[in-house]
Amino acid sequence: MNKLAFKQQLIPKNSRRMHYFGAVLLAMILTLLSIHLTANAATHPNLVINQQDVAAMQQAITEPGAFRHAFEVKLKQVDIGLSQPIEVPLPQDSGGGYTHEKHKSNYQQMYDTGIIYQLTGEKKYAEYVKNMLLQYAALYPELPVHPKRKNSNAGKLFWQGLNEAVWLVHTIQAYDFIYSALTPAERNTIETGAIIPVALFLSEQSPHTFNKVHNHGTWATAAVGMTGYVLNKPLWVERALYDLDLAKNGGFMRQLDELFSPDGYYNEGPYYQRYALMPFVTFAKAIEQNEPQRKIFEYRDGILLNAINTTVSLSYNKLLFPLNDAIKSKGIDTVELVNGAAIAYGLNGDPRLLDIAKQQNTILLTGDGLKVAQGLDKQQQQPFAFNSGLYRDGKRGDEGALVVMRNGKPTDQTLVYKATAQGLGHGHFDKLTWQFYDQGNEIVSDYGAARFLNIEAKSGGGYLPENTSWAKQTIAHNTLVVDETSHFNGKVKQANEHHPTIHFYEQQQNLTLASASIDSAYDDVAFKRTFALINIPQREAVITVDILKVTASQPHQYDLPVHYQGQLIDTNFDREASLTQLSTLGSANGYQHLWLLATANLAQDNPNDTLARVTWLNDNGRFYSHSTLVSTNGKHQQMLFTQLGANDPNMNLRQQPAFIYRVEASNHTFVSVLEPHGEYNPAKEFTLGATSNIAALTHHQQAELSAVHIRFTDGEQYLLAINHSEQALTEQPRSVININGVQYPFNGRAQLLGPLNTDSFD
Amino acid sequence: MNKLAFKQQLIPKNSRRMHYFGAVLLAMILTLLSIHLTANAATHPNLVINQQDVAAMQQAITEPGAFRHAFEVKLKQVDIGLSQPIEVPLPQDSGGGYTHEKHKSNYQQMYDTGIIYQLTGEKKYAEYVKNMLLQYAALYPELPVHPKRKNSNAGKLFWQGLNEAVWLVHTIQAYDFIYSALTPAERNTIETGAIIPVALFLSEQSPHTFNKVHNHGTWATAAVGMTGYVLNKPLWVERALYDLDLAKNGGFMRQLDELFSPDGYYNEGPYYQRYALMPFVTFAKAIEQNEPQRKIFEYRDGILLNAINTTVSLSYNKLLFPLNDAIKSKGIDTVELVNGAAIAYGLNGDPRLLDIAKQQNTILLTGDGLKVAQGLDKQQQQPFAFNSGLYRDGKRGDEGALVVMRNGKPTDQTLVYKATAQGLGHGHFDKLTWQFYDQGNEIVSDYGAARFLNIEAKSGGGYLPENTSWAKQTIAHNTLVVDETSHFNGKVKQANEHHPTIHFYEQQQNLTLASASIDSAYDDVAFKRTFALINIPQREAVITVDILKVTASQPHQYDLPVHYQGQLIDTNFDREASLTQLSTLGSANGYQHLWLLATANLAQDNPNDTLARVTWLNDNGRFYSHSTLVSTNGKHQQMLFTQLGANDPNMNLRQQPAFIYRVEASNHTFVSVLEPHGEYNPAKEFTLGATSNIAALTHHQQAELSAVHIRFTDGEQYLLAINHSEQALTEQPRSVININGVQYPFNGRAQLLGPLNTDSFD
Repeated sequence: MNKLAFKQQLIPKNSRRMHYFGAVLLAMILTLLSIHLTANAATHPNLVINQQDVAAMQQAITEPGAFRHAFEVKLKQVDIGLSQPIEVPLPQDSGGGYTHEKHKSNYQQMYDTGIIYQLTGEKKYAEYVKNMLLQYAALYPELPVHPKRKNSNAGKLFWQGLNEAVWLVHTIQAYDFIYSALTPAERNTIETGAIIPVALFLSEQSPHTFNKVHNHGTWATAAVGMTGYVLNKPLWVERALYDLDLAKNGGFMRQLDELFSPDGYYNEGPYYQRYALMPFVTFAKAIEQNEPQRKIFEYRDGILLNAINTTVSLSYNKLLFPLNDAIKSKGIDTVELVNGAAIAYGLNGDPRLLDIAKQQNTILLTGDGLKVAQGLDKQQQQPFAFNSGLYRDGKRGDEGALVVMRNGKPTDQTLVYKATAQGLGHGHFDKLTWQFYDQGNEIVSDYGAARFLNIEAKSGGGYLPENTSWAKQTIAHNTLVVDETSHFNGKVKQANEHHPTIHFYEQQQNLTLASASIDSAYDDVAFKRTFALINIPQREAVITVDILKVTASQPHQYDLPVHYQGQLIDTNFDREASLTQLSTLGSANGYQHLWLLATANLAQDNPNDTLARVTWLNDNGRFYSHSTLVSTNGKHQQMLFTQLGANDPNMNLRQQPAFIYRVEASNHTFVSVLEPHGEYNPAKEFTLGATSNIAALTHHQQAELSAVHIRFTDGEQYLLAINHSEQALTEQPRSVININGVQYPFNGRAQLLGPLNTDSFD
Repeated sequence: MNKLAFKQQLIPKNSRRMHYFGAVLLAMILTLLSIHLTANAATHPNLVINQQDVAAMQQAITEPGAFRHAFEVKLKQVDIGLSQPIEVPLPQDSGGGYTHEKHKSNYQQMYDTGIIYQLTGEKKYAEYVKNMLLQYAALYPELPVHPKRKNSNAGKLFWQGLNEAVWLVHTIQAYDFIYSALTPAERNTIETGAIIPVALFLSEQSPHTFNKVHNHGTWATAAVGMTGYVLNKPLWVERALYDLDLAKNGGFMRQLDELFSPDGYYNEGPYYQRYALMPFVTFAKAIEQNEPQRKIFEYRDGILLNAINTTVSLSYNKLLFPLNDAIKSKGIDTVELVNGAAIAYGLNGDPRLLDIAKQQNTILLTGDGLKVAQGLDKQQQQPFAFNSGLYRDGKRGDEGALVVMRNGKPTDQTLVYKATAQGLGHGHFDKLTWQFYDQGNEIVSDYGAARFLNIEAKSGGGYLPENTSWAKQTIAHNTLVVDETSHFNGKVKQANEHHPTIHFYEQQQNLTLASASIDSAYDDVAFKRTFALINIPQREAVITVDILKVTASQPHQYDLPVHYQGQLIDTNFDREASLTQLSTLGSANGYQHLWLLATANLAQDNPNDTLARVTWLNDNGRFYSHSTLVSTNGKHQQMLFTQLGANDPNMNLRQQPAFIYRVEASNHTFVSVLEPHGEYNPAKEFTLGATSNIAALTHHQQAELSAVHIRFTDGEQYLLAINHSEQALTEQPRSVININGVQYPFNGRAQLLGPLNTDSFD
């Protein structure tokens, strides 16, 4: 498709004429704007950092404190860089390769050296940045598209256009830092040789990416918009904000409208949210400095600050929840969130952001970084509130939600219930899955992405084939798999069209619960899942109750996996293990990657048991018992023990264990309880509470009411009673559930009753 | 066997008459000693803590500092204990079970409450200890041997007599603390009901354990000897020191003579050394307080202080090297080493022990603990020297050795070369194995013990069956396996009779190396292994060279495994992976536990390659490449990739990966290089140096001289030249090795030559 045809496709035919007149009008307005911008643009720097910031920072480095310390560290590092020859190599390598990493370190070095120039005023720093920019200006015009390009969004300096945009976001700031130290001729050489061609490459020459409502689009628009401010090209700013044709079908403002939900949730999940935040907050800060009248940080009820807060909230023990395609080592100390927290703190001075900044342990050399450093020097931080919460998905907040249930301190029990929409191409087929954390660790976990970032030997550092064949498949998650096929048959397009329905989310003193359902993941099968995180302080017990109700018109095979982290300790049923030969559990949809280690036939082998219990020991030294109700109505029920790693010729996968509860039925309700208990302390040579405290479970359903009855090994009994009514239950209407002839009244959405005054267990 | 027969067996026949006269004489001496002891014993407490210590501690808790802080923490804990009812249950459970853990916490609580009584003088603390002791006095006389006893050394309160001895070591100190607060009648009840019967059970009634030169014997003799001091029974002290018959065939002094080598190495390895240290240093301290004239800490050139120092030295990143049966989470912060370091510091005031104490982060409420606290308050600590060293094994230091090679800081590269003797029943069949550590982590690792300490569901918390079938077997280690059989055919008795020969250990500025051999591990096969840890500062490279020369009269199958920690990244040869079915690698001697994941036929598939390279990524973010010379002389050579976990019905084993170099030959020399390189930093989104820097290796041997020629990818070349002469080479004789017509002279035992002035590589 040539460029013109492409443009025409973007603009509805009947609007083209109007568009033409609009463009003329806009050109006139932009001429006026240009005068306005020129006045501002004369004061370099003026993107993330302005001249007032520079003055304050210059003052701060004369006094002791965190900021001066950060300056001194950076200065030392920049001086080392200055002692080495400048190298701007011909682009050759993909991610992780030499030229790729060199061009990345170059833009970082130009940025760092530029800010040191601003802080010290020493010419040698400006000189260094200038010389590197001149080399780019000499190289860039001759470059073809990158030889290792992988997709339609190719770059020239890098294999992906995305990296090119990141290059420009940094480089335009570096250029802004040294602008005043350059002669007009030098500016001309650099702008015409490097900056303008890169900006045009990212915008006019890559319209699909530039106009895309997606994080690649955000990087491109931020790069081009910021360049527009520095080069005094208001049209570029407008294009960045409203798309190439100023038609508002794409662009930064449309991205702000669509990529975040009203709760600040990003549709691809927290891993990409973190990444996407960088250009959002950087460009927004530049807009705020240049055109405060746009009130960009107030836009959509302060969506950007909301999004920063949400990203930090979607973490456990400093690491982001690994939802969808996510590399697990990314956390709140990544540079994107250091930037986000600093800019947010600069705007609102919220002392809880200082708590995050303290954990990040990185002070930025920016005006906002200075404010953070001063706040920390004065020890003004207050604990960031990691609370339970409902994070609605979808631009209008009506496409499912992510539910976070937390108990106590930030590293205490945390349950993540994912009832979100698909999250585009990086989404996983994992409707109504969950994760569980405790004492700093993953307990019931998600595989995250199958990827070794930037390691060339591993598929060039990109997503591995196993990301599609395993990590995205439903069986890789802790949710229902029907007939060994993934949700939506693993089709992204279909998945993007549907989302779960949230029935309720309720938070009380010692009880948090949520319920959601989906009937579009499979043709014949609908399922509804309700989670409750219960704290029983008098028992020092925190338990998770999981009720998964599946309905269908025909019999199916239902698999419900638990991907546990730790070493299997015990089960209360016999397992038949494969001792000398292993086979795969299945042949497709992720099953081909699972070795079947052991099988247990539950109902037939254990006619009198009503609970199937699996106990494991996590590295955190605590035991975890997962107990599932075994139905006694003759259904074929098995527990399968698996390990990841089959059909993995390049040993790309981690060898994770799982157990899978398998039932053949039309309708079935899975009822499970997860209980952390005891302590294994080999250093101090003691072990306490290595066995589960839960003796029995029963489940009851009466119309809209349901109850889970729990008996502990010491005889104490509790009843979790829930009203599933679709009506709001804020007025505490009184419900009554009848169990074996005893009436149990309860209020509102749900209540934990107990200890019960009853001797017998139903 | 009755007791008399047993005693007769212990005492050589022709010495029995002499023994009788000797005993009469000793009885007379002991009567005199008794008078002497009575004088001392009147001053309670007088075991680890004496009255001067108490006075100093009472003063210290009136002043701010680390000691008062430790006191306050302990006081709070003890007060909580006092608020709860005393429970002395009927013994029922094995390790990890309720009654087991209760009796353990009881002795700890008596000890802690006793010391709080000494420090505060408040009667309620003495009262509490007294009441618990009275309950033991009521319970113990009626007890049969423990219902869960597992071996000949059964206890009554506990399943093992060992635990009973530990109980008495603590309890006698607690009794000593409150002795002065008791009436004579109370003392009589407690002594006759609990303390004397336990001491007799451990000594007269368990002669085999009591007289054994083994850590179980040390606990028993310490318990009985300390009881002898408190109860003024000098015969018990003498028996503890010189065995039940005072014949010096066993007892504490014999243990001091035999269980440690002259370098302070304990024959079972550092894990049991740590455990054994507790009764050694505790009893020795009690001897020092009661009978300083014995000069127990000067005995055998200060062997006890030497042993404490050695135990601390045999650790990496705070964890003890997991040699033989060792649980990996044990480190220098275990209570045994807290005690050891404090007692040693009390004796010698070495400020480097304060560095260890600081890392231990535990202040003892003892006189020595006070000295440590005061040293730390004054910040007098100096870095503990973690140096390279040779730790000879055997009571005379002539039964092999453990070699530790360290480079730089404590968490930099560390190579452990195990050329020790077997180490009795807890020893592994792992002659000439090695381990490698870097950046805080295990890189080439040892499985350690297969055991979940005190978890009842896992074989009652004892050693698992897989400890014998896997962990002890040769294939579980990083050393040569011949014909899929373990060293000494896996027979402990035979293994205990042999040990490796150390040829040399040499340490220079940037080069540490050692060589050892053994010809008794297999009937037909002898092997000699030489390790060098080389630091090349100008390349920022640290590489390990491993030369393993195997000779035999007949062809055999040689397997050399590398148990690596991390994720496989790449190999420079093709692997044929088992994708849908896995089988075990073998059927016995540990091989039955290995799944065969992939196979590579090296020589035939890669006729021109001379290096087989495996690269993996460790959790520490660094890459490791292991490169092995592939022989081109037509030998059948394979690389096998395995994963642990077959024949493991209870899922007791960790799923560790390994690669095994397999050669069929009579004589073969394995030459390998391990190279740490690069960095994987997904949080900061960069990857550097993911590929090996070593391009080629060759090995040369000329009579006693050998050389390994290394060429790096940038063309730089080095030669490691070694003189294997059995003569000492301290005088720097000049050797000359000829490689492809070029003469390379070098001095002394070994030298790293380079970069070489040569263009071609041989």
